[in-house]
Amino acid sequence: MTPTSILDLLADVQRGDVTPEQASARLASLPFEDIGHARIDHHRALRTGLPEVIYAAGKTPQQVAEIFSRMAAAGSDVLATRADADAASAVLSLHPDAAYDPQARTITLRQTTPPEPRGHVAVLCAGTSDLPVAEEAAITAELFNARVTRLYDVGVAGLHRLLAVRDQLASAHVVIVCAGMEGALPSVVGGLVGVPVIAVPTSVGYGASFAGAAALLGMLNSCSPNVSVVNIDNGFGAAYTATLIARASHRDPA
Amino acid sequence: MTPTSILDLLADVQRGDVTPEQASARLASLPFEDIGHARIDHHRALRTGLPEVIYAAGKTPQQVAEIFSRMAAAGSDVLATRADADAASAVLSLHPDAAYDPQARTITLRQTTPPEPRGHVAVLCAGTSDLPVAEEAAITAELFNARVTRLYDVGVAGLHRLLAVRDQLASAHVVIVCAGMEGALPSVVGGLVGVPVIAVPTSVGYGASFAGAAALLGMLNSCSPNVSVVNIDNGFGAAYTATLIARASHRDPA
Amino acid sequence: MTPTSILDLLADVQRGDVTPEQASARLASLPFEDIGHARIDHHRALRTGLPEVIYAAGKTPQQVAEIFSRMAAAGSDVLATRADADAASAVLSLHPDAAYDPQARTITLRQTTPPEPRGHVAVLCAGTSDLPVAEEAAITAELFNARVTRLYDVGVAGLHRLLAVRDQLASAHVVIVCAGMEGALPSVVGGLVGVPVIAVPTSVGYGASFAGAAALLGMLNSCSPNVSVVNIDNGFGAAYTATLIARASHRDPA
Amino acid sequence: MTPTSILDLLADVQRGDVTPEQASARLASLPFEDIGHARIDHHRALRTGLPEVIYAAGKTPQQVAEIFSRMAAAGSDVLATRADADAASAVLSLHPDAAYDPQARTITLRQTTPPEPRGHVAVLCAGTSDLPVAEEAAITAELFNARVTRLYDVGVAGLHRLLAVRDQLASAHVVIVCAGMEGALPSVVGGLVGVPVIAVPTSVGYGASFAGAAALLGMLNSCSPNVSVVNIDNGFGAAYTATLIARASHRDPA
Amino acid sequence: MTPTSILDLLADVQRGDVTPEQASARLASLPFEDIGHARIDHHRALRTGLPEVIYAAGKTPQQVAEIFSRMAAAGSDVLATRADADAASAVLSLHPDAAYDPQARTITLRQTTPPEPRGHVAVLCAGTSDLPVAEEAAITAELFNARVTRLYDVGVAGLHRLLAVRDQLASAHVVIVCAGMEGALPSVVGGLVGVPVIAVPTSVGYGASFAGAAALLGMLNSCSPNVSVVNIDNGFGAAYTATLIARASHRDPA
Amino acid sequence: MTPTSILDLLADVQRGDVTPEQASARLASLPFEDIGHARIDHHRALRTGLPEVIYAAGKTPQQVAEIFSRMAAAGSDVLATRADADAASAVLSLHPDAAYDPQARTITLRQTTPPEPRGHVAVLCAGTSDLPVAEEAAITAELFNARVTRLYDVGVAGLHRLLAVRDQLASAHVVIVCAGMEGALPSVVGGLVGVPVIAVPTSVGYGASFAGAAALLGMLNSCSPNVSVVNIDNGFGAAYTATLIARASHRDPA
Amino acid sequence: MTPTSILDLLADVQRGDVTPEQASARLASLPFEDIGHARIDHHRALRTGLPEVIYAAGKTPQQVAEIFSRMAAAGSDVLATRADADAASAVLSLHPDAAYDPQARTITLRQTTPPEPRGHVAVLCAGTSDLPVAEEAAITAELFNARVTRLYDVGVAGLHRLLAVRDQLASAHVVIVCAGMEGALPSVVGGLVGVPVIAVPTSVGYGASFAGAAALLGMLNSCSPNVSVVNIDNGFGAAYTATLIARASHRDPA
Amino acid sequence: MTPTSILDLLADVQRGDVTPEQASARLASLPFEDIGHARIDHHRALRTGLPEVIYAAGKTPQQVAEIFSRMAAAGSDVLATRADADAASAVLSLHPDAAYDPQARTITLRQTTPPEPRGHVAVLCAGTSDLPVAEEAAITAELFNARVTRLYDVGVAGLHRLLAVRDQLASAHVVIVCAGMEGALPSVVGGLVGVPVIAVPTSVGYGASFAGAAALLGMLNSCSPNVSVVNIDNGFGAAYTATLIARASHRDPA
Repeated sequence: MTPTSILDLLADVQRGDVTPEQASARLASLPFEDIGHARIDHHRALRTGLPEVIYAAGKTPQQVAEIFSRMAAAGSDVLATRADADAASAVLSLHPDAAYDPQARTITLRQTTPPEPRGHVAVLCAGTSDLPVAEEAAITAELFNARVTRLYDVGVAGLHRLLAVRDQLASAHVVIVCAGMEGALPSVVGGLVGVPVIAVPTSVGYGASFAGAAALLGMLNSCSPNVSVVNIDNGFGAAYTATLIARASHRDPA
Repeated sequence: MTPTSILDLLADVQRGDVTPEQASARLASLPFEDIGHARIDHHRALRTGLPEVIYAAGKTPQQVAEIFSRMAAAGSDVLATRADADAASAVLSLHPDAAYDPQARTITLRQTTPPEPRGHVAVLCAGTSDLPVAEEAAITAELFNARVTRLYDVGVAGLHRLLAVRDQLASAHVVIVCAGMEGALPSVVGGLVGVPVIAVPTSVGYGASFAGAAALLGMLNSCSPNVSVVNIDNGFGAAYTATLIARASHRDPA
Repeated sequence: MTPTSILDLLADVQRGDVTPEQASARLASLPFEDIGHARIDHHRALRTGLPEVIYAAGKTPQQVAEIFSRMAAAGSDVLATRADADAASAVLSLHPDAAYDPQARTITLRQTTPPEPRGHVAVLCAGTSDLPVAEEAAITAELFNARVTRLYDVGVAGLHRLLAVRDQLASAHVVIVCAGMEGALPSVVGGLVGVPVIAVPTSVGYGASFAGAAALLGMLNSCSPNVSVVNIDNGFGAAYTATLIARASHRDPA
Repeated sequence: MTPTSILDLLADVQRGDVTPEQASARLASLPFEDIGHARIDHHRALRTGLPEVIYAAGKTPQQVAEIFSRMAAAGSDVLATRADADAASAVLSLHPDAAYDPQARTITLRQTTPPEPRGHVAVLCAGTSDLPVAEEAAITAELFNARVTRLYDVGVAGLHRLLAVRDQLASAHVVIVCAGMEGALPSVVGGLVGVPVIAVPTSVGYGASFAGAAALLGMLNSCSPNVSVVNIDNGFGAAYTATLIARASHRDPA
Repeated sequence: MTPTSILDLLADVQRGDVTPEQASARLASLPFEDIGHARIDHHRALRTGLPEVIYAAGKTPQQVAEIFSRMAAAGSDVLATRADADAASAVLSLHPDAAYDPQARTITLRQTTPPEPRGHVAVLCAGTSDLPVAEEAAITAELFNARVTRLYDVGVAGLHRLLAVRDQLASAHVVIVCAGMEGALPSVVGGLVGVPVIAVPTSVGYGASFAGAAALLGMLNSCSPNVSVVNIDNGFGAAYTATLIARASHRDPA
Repeated sequence: MTPTSILDLLADVQRGDVTPEQASARLASLPFEDIGHARIDHHRALRTGLPEVIYAAGKTPQQVAEIFSRMAAAGSDVLATRADADAASAVLSLHPDAAYDPQARTITLRQTTPPEPRGHVAVLCAGTSDLPVAEEAAITAELFNARVTRLYDVGVAGLHRLLAVRDQLASAHVVIVCAGMEGALPSVVGGLVGVPVIAVPTSVGYGASFAGAAALLGMLNSCSPNVSVVNIDNGFGAAYTATLIARASHRDPA
Repeated sequence: MTPTSILDLLADVQRGDVTPEQASARLASLPFEDIGHARIDHHRALRTGLPEVIYAAGKTPQQVAEIFSRMAAAGSDVLATRADADAASAVLSLHPDAAYDPQARTITLRQTTPPEPRGHVAVLCAGTSDLPVAEEAAITAELFNARVTRLYDVGVAGLHRLLAVRDQLASAHVVIVCAGMEGALPSVVGGLVGVPVIAVPTSVGYGASFAGAAALLGMLNSCSPNVSVVNIDNGFGAAYTATLIARASHRDPA
Repeated sequence: MTPTSILDLLADVQRGDVTPEQASARLASLPFEDIGHARIDHHRALRTGLPEVIYAAGKTPQQVAEIFSRMAAAGSDVLATRADADAASAVLSLHPDAAYDPQARTITLRQTTPPEPRGHVAVLCAGTSDLPVAEEAAITAELFNARVTRLYDVGVAGLHRLLAVRDQLASAHVVIVCAGMEGALPSVVGGLVGVPVIAVPTSVGYGASFAGAAALLGMLNSCSPNVSVVNIDNGFGAAYTATLIARASHRDPA
């Protein structure tokens, strides 16, 4: 609830259009919708202009479908992450226009007319096994109206593969780097570019990778100061922040 | 070394101005300076337009002073982080115009004429004990030419203190949040703003804070998707990335 | 065995009604029942006036049903926690009046006439995925005769949802807060209320949540001094302690 | 800021005594005092009726003394925890009536006339080395107007010592148990009493005690359901919560 | 290979019955049997007089049965631990006299005439869920010819249950204590008896029990100095060591 | 891309056979093959003369088969590690000459005429359960043209079994030691030989082995200075390095 | 308090010599002495016939001296562990016959006439740096009347040094093994002897030894089943348990 | 004791020059020297032809000097690692020809005439702070007669600095890479060279570097298969193994 609307409300009280008791109640009646097992925050989508998002893990297909439908009813674009095939079936039976990507485990519904892409996000991954996380990031960024360049399988042990894509990195406003194992790629990329790098540790690896903890620690200790880190496998979060950066970086022609 | 300069070099070869052997050598002779115990990378400062930076921890005062002087000789602004009083004395005896901040442990030397600030960075901290980290971030961001707003002691257990500074948050292009203990502040701030939040866990706390690890984990698991994280106590890194974001976000008047 | 009953026993000895040998044996024959694989402690229920409780995890359906029946035979209310569908079937075939809640995984049997609720417990959770733990807590507290207010999906990233329920929090004698991810909610709630807050970390989350350890650490490091913590996913334990507090807090009309 | 005061403010607006602009500003101007390095929250003390508290660790003696004086100026009782001898000297030179306990590292200033103790808190510790934490808890609870019974050196390896104090435990409304090493004492005490037990792991021990982490884990896994846990060495937090419970448990004579 | 047999061998060389080359080879040909995937060490059984033992986990039923048969062929008693039903079927089809205990997951074959029990081992466990580990210990100790007293479900939260079995503890030469959760039981038992206590942490528990690590740490930090610890769930190892102690403690009637 | 080929390219530019623009592009077009989900680096095999290798875990059978075929098409020997039966079926249907080892989970295709073995690698393991890792190492080393001696089930608790194979250790140029549990074997072997020992912790064990972490830590802390360590279960990596050492150690007859 | 004394007390009650109230009080008045900061448990020494023991760490020299004197006053032998030079001075000024060992940090006072040694304890250590822990064990075992054989610097990387002391190991009733780094020595020793081995991890080592945690884990995962483990650096605890085993193992001539 | 010397001994027995009893004793009297607090293993130096080595940490200057002198008396080269200035003074007062390097903390005594260097070891480090570890490695390798090339301050965030030294890497037989922070350098170097890489994590860094653990994990998870790892800060161990590899790799002119 923005300062402006508080002022409006208080002005209504001053004018006698609203009693103090009503105003007090209204302060509490913020724009979210309570459907029993969840409070859907249309307010966030309204405030940020970004799509509505459901984190589908740990919810039943019916819950996912119900929340998805409520969000879709508001006319926004909708994104569900961590959705398995059952959740996708439940949603697509109600929204045949939605699209399911089984590798990225995303369900996307485009209801608005996409504007020109705002900003350029490069998504890198170190190996084939990092693809699901990278795709979650790429699909999210696309739905959030960024231009996305995918640069996959460019791990640091074959440096020539990374150097070969250097030109493609040059025009990005922000770079997302997904890597498991030792998590070295963001440091190397961070030294090659002059823009923010968002590192996503992936749970790829075995033995002492400890399900991504080794990569996470590596990235937090990056010697490149333009690297910040999100949670293990959190491609969505990386793309969310990257989109905010990219759209800020994007200058509309004056 | 940018694609352009490679093309220039290859054109020189084509024109016969440079032999292939010379070109091959030059590809290797990149602009860093070897002073025995360190290779100073003037290239980075040239490439990014950002000040030169020394990480002073683990270096002798003499080493810090020598590297500082070499960097200063190139005419850039210079920043030393994690500098104790001895390192500061060694530097200030050579560079009386440099400034030492004992709380933030930074030495700064401004040699360029600062342009108009580019972008607005808000720096928050949860408690008084987080001040050194927050000040390292704030001083860094100022030297990097961002406008900085400091909002200190706004922890989540006294929510009214945080809500009281909400207006000041509204105009920031990026928010740095320093917090120890449970690391909850970035999540709350992330829900209040529509810009990227860079979370800095601090090693403040006792018992099961495990020197900042608890705050770090809390921040990585933030339920706000616009939060990314840097290493414990890494105010410098947060400010470096924040500056990159803020200057992109800053629109020059058309 | 209370001091009173020791005195009674010793008085019996003094009167010659009980020989020293018998008294010595009786000191050892405390009121638990040995059914081979378990020693059922009717004593605890008698002493505390609280229902009998079975922790069903790791027991076969037959074992759960047998213990449940022995407890029910004593006339108390009975609660089984962490019960799967098989255990529920085994119990309900013997006790058709018992109720199974598949989300909370509780089996409850009400055999006493419930008195007026004693004390008011608010149960909050941060997200939809915390519901099973929150419901275990809520159902437990209800069976233990507290008045329970459920306030779900009020995570800190959408502060207005939490502030909207502030009035409902105001009358609680104790607040249970279930949260996974960063575990920030108890700190924020702790700052809003003047009563004890019992924090329950949940194993919700992924990556660096480490199955609830991140939330646990966050809660232990809470900056609100009225927060204490129970084990990950331990909704039952939280409700047990909360009930003890709430009934103490509840003043009967004089 | 309570619902009542919001209603009062809105009524003022309705009556025209306060303009909407003024009301909006006042919503933000909550009663804390900004002294540069800290925002003193007189509001909390007013709201809860509990003393003001300073966490002195990581603050300079001057900072501690300044905050202490500001708090004392408001007329409340004041408590500083984790205060070393230097901080104590700085405070006592300004407030000769304050008292310093070097073992508990507390500075207390009693300015109000203490009412009758409200509620009874038992403080147990397992060994001599746990005394500083236990005393921090005991002194805090006393300043917060609870009756405190100290029962020290009653570790589980000498069970008769614990059983010998059982009567003294019987009348407590809440029990604080401080223990390092294996952290077993709260479970045993939890089985002996019918009131909430607040467990405080201490950093006493060596080797695999990992500075209190072993005791912390033991307490979180307590098999007694009336045990909740606070951070390692956090005697203050335990006493704060215990006081809230004890005063609720305390029935004034009708 | 004992000093005696080395002397015998060297005497053979001195007498010329064995050449130096043969002796050198014989030094290497120690009495184990190589069956491809394993080297069966009959030597250990011969040397110690204890049964042969197979750790069945991670071996195929066929491998378990083959090793079991080779061991049985030598006439010793044989024990297989961590054996599932398939391994048991494979063994019992070859050795119908062997016995399988599905709870303890042991297969035992008694081929020798058991002597009088040597020494008395008490096996305690804290809860019903610790039974499999306790039974592995009890069955092992019995096969190794100790007298075994089982005392189950005597956790520390119901101290009267433990005190009720104190007499039965009094005559044991060594006590094995199996406990999960907080691992407090060995400390309490250690204070009640004057003989060695071998603590076995079990992987029982949830949340912050971390699969037995909490209990393990608790036991290592025991405040009772007569407690030593074996690996999580290692009932066999506890019984092996306990048997060595018990038989030493057992005095034959003079 | 070796210095030589850079010189060749630059010479082409000098001669006018290649334009600077073409050369710049060619610098980026390094010899890897992009098949969508992977960039196959024929360059590495060419450069090192070692077989091509696929890490099959986390890839679909179809992906493994496709990459395998592309690699085989280049004429090299090919090795797939961590391949399950489905991946093996997919590969063998295309390459009937390939061999699958279900214990080691390797698929090998020998297409070159193997030269004389170069160097001698001894592979030891501590117990039967370490066999899969040891076999992955042994099969890899054989495909890489080393002579391999397998010495299995020689754990430190039966020292005579280890001493019995000492002669066979003596001629090895490098020793690979696979061990779980306490990871003691490499230290003991390291003291017996004068060549490098590569230690491979295995995830064998239970309880506090923490899936190989205990063995890993043990090996890293080895008191034998000729021990270096690879990741848990990483038999392939151990053999790769061992082969490099062994072939260097192998002196061709002059 | 033994069953016998309970019977005596109850008989007194029956005879009327003791009132029930007196008996109830006496049940609580167990033989420990409360000196304010500690409850000295003379009962333990009486019950076990072992010396009184003070854990001096974390106590002031005055506290150590006071407790030492109270214990000495009872006529028992007294042992203080973890005593620094100041504590030793304080004690020796009162008890000139006490002996201080600065390496083992023990203060010992022999007041009883030592009987013939009962049982034989071998104390091994892996390296010179483990000496303090080994000496704490050896001195403790000697004061507790065991015969002690010290075998130092016999690490596993030089196996011949260990094999050279094999004869001396053969006659021990129990073996204490102190080792840091990888903690391999107990496993090797466990395979060489047929008696219980008590492993003491030491905090010797660097890097990934994590202050003894690596050695601890190694020992817990020992492949020798006669190994049990005590806390890091806990030489005293190892000797306490070893003495109990050794005296049981020691057969008096019939 | 090599097979040859065993044969010699046995032959002596056969000839009657040695009795079996003497031979048995001699098998135990291996060539180490017992000086009370240490057993000096001249045997190792004899067997391997490498210098004698003392790990000075945790030893008194007198102990270091005594062991150093005993070793020097045997005529070998001697190396002490982790030696502080006091230990160096003690040694140099006895051996004025020894050399102390305060950065590497090594004391070296060259007594043999160094042969031609055998093999080439490259030592890299990522940053200035890794110098002490890198120098320990370099000085060790030099004393062990390898040719050493130092390539310092070539971290991955400035890739051009690493690429600039690529030619110097090309001729090395083995590469030691010391790096703290994220530990990424070995992976990148591993991809650039075709020889074994020995990675040394350093304890450089702060926050979530956890004293080198992050770098250690990164290196263990390296995506380059020619990387093996030694303990944190273990420059000596890396050089020891590297020397063994390098000398094998070094071909004498035929």
